Amino acid sequence: MQEIVKRAYAWAEGFLGQGHAATFIPELTKQDPNQLGIAITTCDGASYQVGDCHAKFTIQSISKLFLLAVALEDSGFDHVFSRVGMEPSGDQFNSIYRLETERGPANPMINAGAIAVSGCIHGDTVEQRVEKVLALAAACMGVSEVERSAEVFRCEVETGHRNRALAHMMQGNGVLDGDVNEHLETYYHACSMLVDCAMLSRFGAVLANGGQDLNSDRQLLGKETARLLRTLMASCGLYNRAGEFAWRVGVPAKSGSGGGIMAAMPGRMGIGTFSPLLDERGNSVCGQKALEYLSRELELSVY
Amino acid sequence: MQEIVKRAYAWAEGFLGQGHAATFIPELTKQDPNQLGIAITTCDGASYQVGDCHAKFTIQSISKLFLLAVALEDSGFDHVFSRVGMEPSGDQFNSIYRLETERGPANPMINAGAIAVSGCIHGDTVEQRVEKVLALAAACMGVSEVERSAEVFRCEVETGHRNRALAHMMQGNGVLDGDVNEHLETYYHACSMLVDCAMLSRFGAVLANGGQDLNSDRQLLGKETARLLRTLMASCGLYNRAGEFAWRVGVPAKSGSGGGIMAAMPGRMGIGTFSPLLDERGNSVCGQKALEYLSRELELSVY
Amino acid sequence: MQEIVKRAYAWAEGFLGQGHAATFIPELTKQDPNQLGIAITTCDGASYQVGDCHAKFTIQSISKLFLLAVALEDSGFDHVFSRVGMEPSGDQFNSIYRLETERGPANPMINAGAIAVSGCIHGDTVEQRVEKVLALAAACMGVSEVERSAEVFRCEVETGHRNRALAHMMQGNGVLDGDVNEHLETYYHACSMLVDCAMLSRFGAVLANGGQDLNSDRQLLGKETARLLRTLMASCGLYNRAGEFAWRVGVPAKSGSGGGIMAAMPGRMGIGTFSPLLDERGNSVCGQKALEYLSRELELSVY
Amino acid sequence: MQEIVKRAYAWAEGFLGQGHAATFIPELTKQDPNQLGIAITTCDGASYQVGDCHAKFTIQSISKLFLLAVALEDSGFDHVFSRVGMEPSGDQFNSIYRLETERGPANPMINAGAIAVSGCIHGDTVEQRVEKVLALAAACMGVSEVERSAEVFRCEVETGHRNRALAHMMQGNGVLDGDVNEHLETYYHACSMLVDCAMLSRFGAVLANGGQDLNSDRQLLGKETARLLRTLMASCGLYNRAGEFAWRVGVPAKSGSGGGIMAAMPGRMGIGTFSPLLDERGNSVCGQKALEYLSRELELSVY
Repeated sequence: MQEIVKRAYAWAEGFLGQGHAATFIPELTKQDPNQLGIAITTCDGASYQVGDCHAKFTIQSISKLFLLAVALEDSGFDHVFSRVGMEPSGDQFNSIYRLETERGPANPMINAGAIAVSGCIHGDTVEQRVEKVLALAAACMGVSEVERSAEVFRCEVETGHRNRALAHMMQGNGVLDGDVNEHLETYYHACSMLVDCAMLSRFGAVLANGGQDLNSDRQLLGKETARLLRTLMASCGLYNRAGEFAWRVGVPAKSGSGGGIMAAMPGRMGIGTFSPLLDERGNSVCGQKALEYLSRELELSVY
Repeated sequence: MQEIVKRAYAWAEGFLGQGHAATFIPELTKQDPNQLGIAITTCDGASYQVGDCHAKFTIQSISKLFLLAVALEDSGFDHVFSRVGMEPSGDQFNSIYRLETERGPANPMINAGAIAVSGCIHGDTVEQRVEKVLALAAACMGVSEVERSAEVFRCEVETGHRNRALAHMMQGNGVLDGDVNEHLETYYHACSMLVDCAMLSRFGAVLANGGQDLNSDRQLLGKETARLLRTLMASCGLYNRAGEFAWRVGVPAKSGSGGGIMAAMPGRMGIGTFSPLLDERGNSVCGQKALEYLSRELELSVY
Repeated sequence: MQEIVKRAYAWAEGFLGQGHAATFIPELTKQDPNQLGIAITTCDGASYQVGDCHAKFTIQSISKLFLLAVALEDSGFDHVFSRVGMEPSGDQFNSIYRLETERGPANPMINAGAIAVSGCIHGDTVEQRVEKVLALAAACMGVSEVERSAEVFRCEVETGHRNRALAHMMQGNGVLDGDVNEHLETYYHACSMLVDCAMLSRFGAVLANGGQDLNSDRQLLGKETARLLRTLMASCGLYNRAGEFAWRVGVPAKSGSGGGIMAAMPGRMGIGTFSPLLDERGNSVCGQKALEYLSRELELSVY
Repeated sequence: MQEIVKRAYAWAEGFLGQGHAATFIPELTKQDPNQLGIAITTCDGASYQVGDCHAKFTIQSISKLFLLAVALEDSGFDHVFSRVGMEPSGDQFNSIYRLETERGPANPMINAGAIAVSGCIHGDTVEQRVEKVLALAAACMGVSEVERSAEVFRCEVETGHRNRALAHMMQGNGVLDGDVNEHLETYYHACSMLVDCAMLSRFGAVLANGGQDLNSDRQLLGKETARLLRTLMASCGLYNRAGEFAWRVGVPAKSGSGGGIMAAMPGRMGIGTFSPLLDERGNSVCGQKALEYLSRELELSVY
């Protein structure tokens, strides 16, 4: 396996330099663009790592999965999915125009959806809500504590005009209650979690393992919640490149504009990749390539 | 003339009860729906009034003209029209979807446009900016001071989620700077001005008179500004009913969801109408009917 | 007057070379791009001409007015306007997306609208219907017969995929009956009429004259029909540049992608201009400039 | 297994009467709405059938898979996917508005996509092209010959205004060459194939079996083609209900407005269901319910 990961690295490395850094958050452009890391954690706990597997980056959209898991725990499936759909939207991750004609966002993996989901997390303060997200994230990624980038958080708050517009549209449509700024802050705190691709691979392995901890019989996530997350990853995890990714890789996965991708191969393994440059849809170029290679070699496609 | 206005009243009265009260501002639904007033002020200062010509209502969208006039004064034509267009949009007054693909709003007569325009008014505080609008409005409407409805203002702030979304979209697009909440408040203060249809007819007469005061040779508005306002009224003044209104009435006019309509017949007269029930595009039903009658009888169409 | 037209020519000439030839009809790109003609016909029959006033070009969209006039004659106002609206659309002249959510086209001056209108012209064959259009056009333009460009007609049929799509959408929406190809052919025949700007100015003068012939008391168009055409020209005549044109010129006008513009100043005069290069919305660049100059000098704006 | 299928039938039967018959093809409304059939064919050739498994109905959109397979064979992957994408669109199956801004249709499973794909099938005549589709369909469904409904074909040709509009838009966009009517006819012939749910289950089993015949080692479809079809079914197979279906069922599937659904569980089995009443997205209500039950009982979800 280690050998295959090395070969995946060698192949994906050939695409370094392609794509562009995320521009909407100035802080993200400061990353070294030549980083590449690939980590695998199998469901029985073995791990394989090649490249920059301990370089830290912000989790960004991959946190949408933690937000959703906590919201489901707090508000229940029916409440959450009365406010957000589960259909791929065919649009950019920050698109607003469908909220003109449809009440709620298409799915929890686009920005509008994640903000609506954040509004379903209970707590008296932002920090209380964020604590739940952090605790779940730490458990799923096998660390005692998850740090956050205060710089990226601040940057997202300052530049997040579009997200603010999405939130107010949803409040007008009746799918977001309470203090819009609090929900946006909850979302940005989650996005600013610092992770590495080894941690992502661990999260993927937990999802692949039906939500159960790898070292104990503890359910970090309910079994059905884990399946729901994997399903949404498969149909909406790479924004409006989800369809092509399904063909090239075929494994439920979620990308983040920080450069990370997390994939969960049911019953077998989790994979984390990291490389900062993104394609025009906002997904890591080399990360996709690494996953494509691994899928072919390990026959991972679920389809 | 008084006779013709009476006949216009009698005809328009037959349509009382048609349409619906504006629902997006709860305060507006409290109006007596059976009110109807028609007032004419000619460019030489004569006035003709029939019906509820001194019933007060909030000016709402008709204030967009004052906002634009002040913004032009403060920031100049080129700056203002680098941020907002002058084309009819074909969409509802509060539509957001075009801001996904176009940088600025289509014209200053839809909500997004008026908010962008509010952002072009100079002043250290909201109140400073509002003062300018109030002063111009008072001069143009021939009163010493214009009152505002604190209740409607509060109501608009509380329920204006869509407008807030529009403002943040525009900030993201780079056509609205500074503190979004201040611009929205400026806009809402302007909307909450209390007027009657006699005052509106006076404003119309000033516009018809090339911006010049009716009693003096003072230019309340620049001559070109007056023409610009009349032109924008003609193409965008009744939202996405502007085209049909051009055919049925053919006079530059601006409607407000408070139930008012103000029309300016170049060189001849201003007309103000008031009746609270609106058609599905947000324009007073009986007000349109009264104007249609007057246009036919007085051969007002400019086309 | 002749002096003013000369000065308008001199000023507009300075913009020759700006813009681009219509590309969607290959035949239209063969025009000499440096042509410019300006013709005025007053309501009392005087005429003033400077430049290429007898160069022939295809009338294109200006024919939409003749199509509408014949359709109103054949099917009546209520029938025609149950199928097409009278609102500016805010979109490109050949846009289709609104037909997804709205039954009929926004107005008769965009392609979809003109095709729907063609479907309201009675006749057993295409040629019968086209004859009516040609007869009306000849009378209004003061010629015994209007020629057509067989080459442009053929070209439009061959390349008109988008128009065909519009027609089939409308047939699906129930606003276009019968043989779609016949309606498209009727439309293309009308578009292929060969005119010069002197002829256009004559047409404008007839419209300006309330539809009455300039040499007799014969009504070539009903008075109300003439006002309807002028009104639609004002709000929709220059596609999605109608609003800016209203500000810069302020005279009801209709442009064609062949390079012509026809304007009708109520009670005073008609103006025809010709220059082939178009702005990005499809309107002749130098024609607009000439009209802008004339409007300023002759104080033509109706607003 | 037969027991489980019986229980699935009993459960799904409880939803008979819900939904509505397809209305866009009058012929389809003539079906008995109370029919329900469920058929399973395993990859080793065993079959289990309950209910109306031999009632014939038209295959409709499920034929899009055969069209795509033949087009890939004739024109190659690169050519086909230069004209059509592989992303879920988030829109109705017959939506046109995206073709205004995007060159080609989102994926081969919506109408526009299938028409574009039909244009990639080689052949001198419509019948030659249709023959290829019929031959592949017969082989995959385990019958010697597939019949067609001339009545439904005629009906689709007559009422297919929207599809004609889609085709002409694509011709204008340069993603559909040649005679549009021929491509539409090819598509309609494919849609009018008469199948039963036993046949569909057989097709599903062949897809599940990597394209290999169940009785021989013959590849009816290339292994990669089979995976491509399964992948597209997973992301786009149930129109804009694909996401919810992924959660409730989780098996690559394709629905048709004739009432059929075909599912392919990789390596295990194919499932065919039939029940005519459809949900508002165009998918058989009881068929979905049957698949939901089977997925739960047999743990079929691939996610």
